[in-house]
Amino acid sequence: MNVDQLTNAYCHFFDDDAFFETDRPGFRRRVINGDRLQLCFWRIAGGAAGSFLHRHDGVEQLGIIVRGALDFRIGDPDDETRTVLRPGDVYLAPERIWHGDSIFIGDDEYGECWILDVFAPPRDDLTPAEDAGPRADAGAEPS
Amino acid sequence: MNVDQLTNAYCHFFDDDAFFETDRPGFRRRVINGDRLQLCFWRIAGGAAGSFLHRHDGVEQLGIIVRGALDFRIGDPDDETRTVLRPGDVYLAPERIWHGDSIFIGDDEYGECWILDVFAPPRDDLTPAEDAGPRADAGAEPS
Repeated sequence: MNVDQLTNAYCHFFDDDAFFETDRPGFRRRVINGDRLQLCFWRIAGGAAGSFLHRHDGVEQLGIIVRGALDFRIGDPDDETRTVLRPGDVYLAPERIWHGDSIFIGDDEYGECWILDVFAPPRDDLTPAEDAGPRADAGAEPS
Repeated sequence: MNVDQLTNAYCHFFDDDAFFETDRPGFRRRVINGDRLQLCFWRIAGGAAGSFLHRHDGVEQLGIIVRGALDFRIGDPDDETRTVLRPGDVYLAPERIWHGDSIFIGDDEYGECWILDVFAPPRDDLTPAEDAGPRADAGAEPS
């Protein structure tokens, strides 16, 4: 637990204690709702499987790689070109833009890929776990 | 120039070539507009001065530290408590929440603090430089 987290309600961390397991092995996450923004922090075990190409109606998505790497596809679903994003790299998916088919590459320290997904507006199907129990939001697709 | 940038319109990088100087010495930035999200990438020289406490009407702001550290204040403007955020740490400022009075701490590799600010909705006073000339958006306040 980062001590700063105790002192300021506006600051958030990739903090172990706050993450919840999902139904999908290797995928842990944490959802925080703002007014116009929704944050979905992912800690994903390197090599965790099951990502598929998907898109969102009426929701714009930003993804920021924080640790490890994301090897994925975005854009034309018939184009099999892959892109590898590393820490600090970003993708911005307008609504209905296909993305996914992801390979998650772990970092040296944790063997994990850390990604912050940001949705605008907040998605109704993603609920902060502290509001709804740890498995309430177990079904969503990472990056 | 990261070669991936040439191949995918949806992916963005903290890439030297794409950054513009601002009127404030030590502050370089790059603005990308989405439909609901606006990305403002900052590369700030360690120790760069001039940050002041500020807030935004009608705009929610997310800040993500990518390199270096941000030593700043957020919340009650009369509370002088400071918080230090490091790579992967995040702050989420609802509209009209005071933040700033920042000290920017450079990383070992570039001597810079890299921050991605995200605004929703996009601010009219921040214009992508490629649309409006490199100094069109020179006046905004980082983090």
